[in-house]
Amino acid sequence: MPLTDPNRLFPVEARQRDLARALYDSVAALPIISPHGHCDPIWFAQNARFPNPAELFVVPDHYVFRMLVSQGVPLGDLGVARVDGGAVEADPRVIFRRFAKQYKLFRGTPSALWLDHSFEHVFGIDQVLGEATADAIYDHIEGCLATDAYRPRALFERFNIELLATTEGALDDLRWHAEIAQSGWGGRVVTTYRPDAVVDPDFEGFAQNIAEFGALTGEDTTTWAGYLAAHVKRRAFFREHGATATDHGHPSAVTADLPRAEAEALFAKVVSGVFTPQEAELFRGQMLTEMARMSLADGMTLQIHAGSRRNHSAGVFAQFGRDKGFDIPGRTDYVAALKPMLDAVGMEPDLTIILFTLDETAYGRELAPLAGAYPALKLGPPWWFFDSYEGIKRFREATTETCGFYNTAGFNDDTRAFCSIPARHDVSRRSDCAYLSELVTTGRLREGDAFEVAHDLAYGLAKTAYHL
Amino acid sequence: MPLTDPNRLFPVEARQRDLARALYDSVAALPIISPHGHCDPIWFAQNARFPNPAELFVVPDHYVFRMLVSQGVPLGDLGVARVDGGAVEADPRVIFRRFAKQYKLFRGTPSALWLDHSFEHVFGIDQVLGEATADAIYDHIEGCLATDAYRPRALFERFNIELLATTEGALDDLRWHAEIAQSGWGGRVVTTYRPDAVVDPDFEGFAQNIAEFGALTGEDTTTWAGYLAAHVKRRAFFREHGATATDHGHPSAVTADLPRAEAEALFAKVVSGVFTPQEAELFRGQMLTEMARMSLADGMTLQIHAGSRRNHSAGVFAQFGRDKGFDIPGRTDYVAALKPMLDAVGMEPDLTIILFTLDETAYGRELAPLAGAYPALKLGPPWWFFDSYEGIKRFREATTETCGFYNTAGFNDDTRAFCSIPARHDVSRRSDCAYLSELVTTGRLREGDAFEVAHDLAYGLAKTAYHL
Amino acid sequence: MPLTDPNRLFPVEARQRDLARALYDSVAALPIISPHGHCDPIWFAQNARFPNPAELFVVPDHYVFRMLVSQGVPLGDLGVARVDGGAVEADPRVIFRRFAKQYKLFRGTPSALWLDHSFEHVFGIDQVLGEATADAIYDHIEGCLATDAYRPRALFERFNIELLATTEGALDDLRWHAEIAQSGWGGRVVTTYRPDAVVDPDFEGFAQNIAEFGALTGEDTTTWAGYLAAHVKRRAFFREHGATATDHGHPSAVTADLPRAEAEALFAKVVSGVFTPQEAELFRGQMLTEMARMSLADGMTLQIHAGSRRNHSAGVFAQFGRDKGFDIPGRTDYVAALKPMLDAVGMEPDLTIILFTLDETAYGRELAPLAGAYPALKLGPPWWFFDSYEGIKRFREATTETCGFYNTAGFNDDTRAFCSIPARHDVSRRSDCAYLSELVTTGRLREGDAFEVAHDLAYGLAKTAYHL
Repeated sequence: MPLTDPNRLFPVEARQRDLARALYDSVAALPIISPHGHCDPIWFAQNARFPNPAELFVVPDHYVFRMLVSQGVPLGDLGVARVDGGAVEADPRVIFRRFAKQYKLFRGTPSALWLDHSFEHVFGIDQVLGEATADAIYDHIEGCLATDAYRPRALFERFNIELLATTEGALDDLRWHAEIAQSGWGGRVVTTYRPDAVVDPDFEGFAQNIAEFGALTGEDTTTWAGYLAAHVKRRAFFREHGATATDHGHPSAVTADLPRAEAEALFAKVVSGVFTPQEAELFRGQMLTEMARMSLADGMTLQIHAGSRRNHSAGVFAQFGRDKGFDIPGRTDYVAALKPMLDAVGMEPDLTIILFTLDETAYGRELAPLAGAYPALKLGPPWWFFDSYEGIKRFREATTETCGFYNTAGFNDDTRAFCSIPARHDVSRRSDCAYLSELVTTGRLREGDAFEVAHDLAYGLAKTAYHL
Repeated sequence: MPLTDPNRLFPVEARQRDLARALYDSVAALPIISPHGHCDPIWFAQNARFPNPAELFVVPDHYVFRMLVSQGVPLGDLGVARVDGGAVEADPRVIFRRFAKQYKLFRGTPSALWLDHSFEHVFGIDQVLGEATADAIYDHIEGCLATDAYRPRALFERFNIELLATTEGALDDLRWHAEIAQSGWGGRVVTTYRPDAVVDPDFEGFAQNIAEFGALTGEDTTTWAGYLAAHVKRRAFFREHGATATDHGHPSAVTADLPRAEAEALFAKVVSGVFTPQEAELFRGQMLTEMARMSLADGMTLQIHAGSRRNHSAGVFAQFGRDKGFDIPGRTDYVAALKPMLDAVGMEPDLTIILFTLDETAYGRELAPLAGAYPALKLGPPWWFFDSYEGIKRFREATTETCGFYNTAGFNDDTRAFCSIPARHDVSRRSDCAYLSELVTTGRLREGDAFEVAHDLAYGLAKTAYHL
Repeated sequence: MPLTDPNRLFPVEARQRDLARALYDSVAALPIISPHGHCDPIWFAQNARFPNPAELFVVPDHYVFRMLVSQGVPLGDLGVARVDGGAVEADPRVIFRRFAKQYKLFRGTPSALWLDHSFEHVFGIDQVLGEATADAIYDHIEGCLATDAYRPRALFERFNIELLATTEGALDDLRWHAEIAQSGWGGRVVTTYRPDAVVDPDFEGFAQNIAEFGALTGEDTTTWAGYLAAHVKRRAFFREHGATATDHGHPSAVTADLPRAEAEALFAKVVSGVFTPQEAELFRGQMLTEMARMSLADGMTLQIHAGSRRNHSAGVFAQFGRDKGFDIPGRTDYVAALKPMLDAVGMEPDLTIILFTLDETAYGRELAPLAGAYPALKLGPPWWFFDSYEGIKRFREATTETCGFYNTAGFNDDTRAFCSIPARHDVSRRSDCAYLSELVTTGRLREGDAFEVAHDLAYGLAKTAYHL
C-alpha cells in the first residue's frame, strides 16, 4: 500500500474530485520553479553525497525537531549543535530512531505529508515510519544516498526543477554559485540578495558588517551615499550570479520615506551603535523604500517577509542559537506600515513587491485590498506555518474574491529541506486544483478558465512575479 | 450556454444541493429590500437613459477599475475624472475594450459573478466578455440602453425592488426625492441621513459645513445646543423624504458619552478648527452617542460603518480624489470602543443600531457576543470586500453560533452599480440558502425552520431592522 | 421523530459520513472526563433534587438568558436575581414559557443542540419546544425531576462520568468535596484551585481576601514570602480534595518574572490598595509565573483562561452583578505576553500549562506555534463562544497543521449546566470525528491512525493533560 493517497487533498465528492484530478493532471508534470528558498548552493557546486538520513530529514529541519522538542525531546538528543560546542547526540541512527519513535506526533501535519512523499517518491519506501521500521528505513535511505542517483544534481534533475533560487547575505562571496556556473552543469541555481545583516541595526555585528560591506565594494559605507552605493554594487554582483530578486526578513512591515537629511542623520545614528529600538525599526523601514527605488532602477523583485518574532525562547537561543523552531508569528499591520513606501513607488507598473505574512488575519482585511489596488504589489504564497493544505485554502478563500489570482505570485517552497521540494510543490498544486474545482462546481469559474489558472498558479505566475 | 450556472453557489453534494435549491426557490421571487446603498436618486426622478456601457459598468465602479489599476492600467485610461480637470480617456468604447481585454483578472471574484449576472439577466447576453467580444457586447448594451425598457424606473420595476434607500449628506436638499414623490411613479425610493460632513471635524470644509447647517435649519450651530437642534430638524426633514435610518462612516468604532460641559467644550474646539486627531475622534464618538439618543426619540435606525482607512494612496487621492478603490480596511476594535454608547443606550429594546465591519476577526470575537447580549444591537451583513460567497459564509459561520439569525439585519447591497442590485441580492440569497442547507443536512437546524429562516434572511429581517 | 439527528455534525458525503460514524461509534461509549467546569459540588454532596425546569435550563445559564435579553426580554423576567434583592419573576413556569416562546432565537446555535440533546436524551422528550408545547414539556421535566433517577448522583452515573472537576476559590473550605469523599458514593468529583480572588488586585475585596488567606493558612500574608507560602499550603489542601489543576481567569495573558525584590515591592503595593491598573496587571502576570513554579514542584496542571472583558454593560453589572452574559472577548496577545513565564519554565518537560483563548486569530498565528515548540505548553479546547461545531472545526483546522494533536489537551465542557455535559462531550466527539474523517478521505491521515486519535481526543489526552 502506498504511503500517500493518489487522490490526496482532492475533494471527496465525485464530480469535484474528478475535476480536481483533471486539473492536477494538467499541471503535475510542469517543471518546478522555486524562486525563493534556503537550499545550500554548495550541494550543487560540489555535488557531494548527503551525509546520512538524520542529516537529511531531522537535524537541519526546524519543522521536524521543534515538534519533537514540544513533546519533551531535548534538542541535543536530536543532534542539533550547541553554541558552546558542547556534546550532543552524534549517532545519526540514534537520532533517526528518536524521530521515528515519535512519528505519530506529525499526524495531520504537512510535515507528515512531505516526509511520506519524500520516503515514497524519492526513496521508494512503502513502510510507515515508526519504532519498528526505523532501522530498516534508515538502512534503505542510507543505501540510496550512497549512490550517484541520490547526489544533489541528480535529484535536482529528477525533481524536474527548472530554476532554484537560494538566499545569500549581502556579504556572501557567492563562490558556490560561480562554481556552479563554471561547472558546465545545466541546472539553473540562482542567488537572492538578502541584506538583513547590513540593513538591520539589531543584527549581530551590524557595525562590523557595514565596515565589511564597504571593504567589499570599495564604497565609503560610513556615509549614507556610500552605503547606498554599496548596495547598488552588491545588487549588480548578485544579478551577475543570477539573482532577480531581493529578500527582506523584518519583524514588522514598517516602511519609511524620510527626507534625505533625516535619512542621513538616522544612518549616522544606527552605524554609531547608539540608537533606540524605534530608530532601528525606522531605519529598516527606510531601507525597504530605498530597496524599492533601487528595484525600480535595476528590475529586481522585492520580497518582504514580515512578522516573525525570532528566537522567542531565551534559553534555546542561548544554547542553540537562531532558527531552532522558536520563531513565533505575531500580529502584523500592513496598512499604515506600507503607506510611506507605497506613496513613493506603489503606483509603478514595472515594479514588483511581493508581500508575505505570518498573520493570516491580514489576508482579506489588508493584503488583498492593497494588492488589488496598487500595481507594484503582489501577494506571496502562504508562508512557513501556513504552507499547507488548510493554509493554502484559507489564503485562496480570503484573497481571491478581492484581488483575484493575477495579483498573487505563484508558489514558493521556501525550504532548506531539499527532498521536500517536490512534495511541497505537489501539495501546492493539489490544493490549488482542489480550490479551483470548488469554484467551477459552484459556478464561480468557467471550467476552461480553471485549466488556464491552474497552469498560471503552478508555473506562469512565479515566472512573471520573479521576472524569470 | 448561459453565462451563469443555474446552480451557482449551491453545495455540490446532491442532497445538500437539492435542499439549497428548494430553499432558494422559496425566496427567489421575493421583492428586493435595499435598505442601504448609493444609487443616485436623480435616475428615478428624471428617468433619463443611462449614457453608455462604460458609464454603466466601468467608470463609476471602484470594484471594477481598481482591479484594472492593480495590473497597471492608469485610472485616466478608464475615464476616471481627474481632480484638475486634465484629459482622461473620453471614448466609452475604448474604455469598455480596455475593461474587456482584462476581464480574466476578475476570475473567481464576486465582480465577475455580478457582471456576468447583469450581462445575462439584465441584457440577455450569452457571450463571455473578452477582447474578441467587446465590441459586439458594447453594441448590444448600447442598443438596450436606448430603449425605454432600460430606463431607470423600468429597470427598478423589472428588478422587483420594493424599497430602495439612497444615502444623502445632511446638507442635501433632497430635491430628487421630492420630485420622485411628486411624480406619481409608484417606486419607493427613500433617503438616509448621512451627516459625516457636519459630524467629522476632519471632513473637508467642516467649519463651512457647520455654518451652512445653521443657515439651512435656522439654528445657531455655533452652540452645542443649536448644533444638536439642527440635527433634530434635519433628521425630521429626511424622515419626511422617507428616511428610516441614519448612516455613519467613521474610521473607527469609537464612541463617547461626555458630560454636557465637556461635550460643549469639545464642540467649541472642533468648530474653531484647532483640534488634535484625538479630539476629532472623540467628537465623532460623542456624536454617535448623540445620534443614538436622537434615534431613541425619533425611531430612526442607526448604522455604523467603521474601519476603512480612506484614500490610502496620496498620489491617487491628489490626482483623482475620493472613492477610487484605495480605501483599505484596518484592524478595528469594538469592545472598548462601543462601551460608552452601549452604557448609555445599549439596553434599549426599541432602538436599533446596526454594526458593519471590515475586520472579519471581530465577527466571532466581538460583534456576535455584543449583538448576542445588547438588545439595541444588530449585525449588518458582510460589507464591501466581504459581500461575496466566501464572505457571507465566513460571516454566518462566525456569528450564528453566538448570536443566531435574529440579531442580524438581513442583506444590504450597498452599491452605486444599479444593474448589480439583482445580482448581489441573488448572491446573498443563494449563499444563505447554501449555508442553511448545510445546517439542515448536518442536523443543526430543522428543515421546516430553515424555510422560515431563508425568508427572514431574504426579506423579513431587513424590514424589521430598518423599521420598514 | 427524534429531536436530534442521529448523524448530526457528520459530513454529508457518503464515504466521509460512514467513516465519521465509524470513528464516532468507536468512542461514543467512552466515559466522560470533565477536567474543567463549574458544577456545584453541593449537588453531589447532598444529592437533593433539582428545583424545577426553569432553574435547570434558564435561570443559571448565561448562554440561554443572554440570547433572550438580546431580543428585549428583561433579565428580571427570566428570574435572574437582582443585586439589590428587588423583585424578579419568581414563577418557574412563567420563566420557562418565556424561554419556550423565543426558542427560535437559538436556531443554528450550539445551545439549541445542547438543549434538544438534553430534552431528548436526558428527559425522553420528542416534541420541539415552543409556545404550544411549553407547558407539556415543563410538566414532563418536572415529573422527572421529582424521581430519584433524576437526582444529581443518578444522573452523574447515567452520564457515564468518570471524573468531574469543579472549580473553587482559594478561600473555599471544600466542605462539599469532603462530604462527597466521606459519603461512600463512588462518583469522582474533584476540585480545582482557582485563586483569582487572592491573585487579582482588581478583585472585589482583594485586601480582605488576602487577610482571610493568611488566617486560613496560618501564614503571614502581609509579606511576599508568607503570601507565597499560603498558596503552597492551599494548593496542598486542594490536592487533598482531589485537585490536579489550578485555573486562572485573567483579562490578558500577560506574565512576568520579576527579580525577588521587585516582586516583593509590587506585592506590598497591591496589598496596600494603592496601585495602577498596570501594576495590577503586572502582579497577576507575576503570579502566573509563581504558580507555574509551584506547579513544577507539586505537579498541578496550570490553566490560563485569558481574554474576557468582563461585565461589559455597566447597567447590567450594577443591577444583576457578574456572569450575566455580558462578558465580551477582546484581542489577546500571547507571544510577548507569555515570554517571561516561558523563559522561566517553558522548557520543562514535566510541567503542563494549558492555554485557552477567546481570540481565535491567535490559534494559528501564536498558540499553535508556541505549543508546537515549548514542552510545557498545551492548547486547551475551544472555549465558551467557540465550544461548538464550527468553533471546533476552526480550532482543528488552524492548529493541527502546526502543533498536531498531541499538543492539545482533549475536551473541557466548562459548564455549570449539568444536563448539558453529555451533549457537549457528544458535540466534541462528533465534531472531532468529522474532522478526522475529512483528513482520512483527503489522504492526510491513515485510517488506522484516525481511530487511535479519536480515542485520544475523546479520552486519553484529557487524562494526560490533567495528570489524571
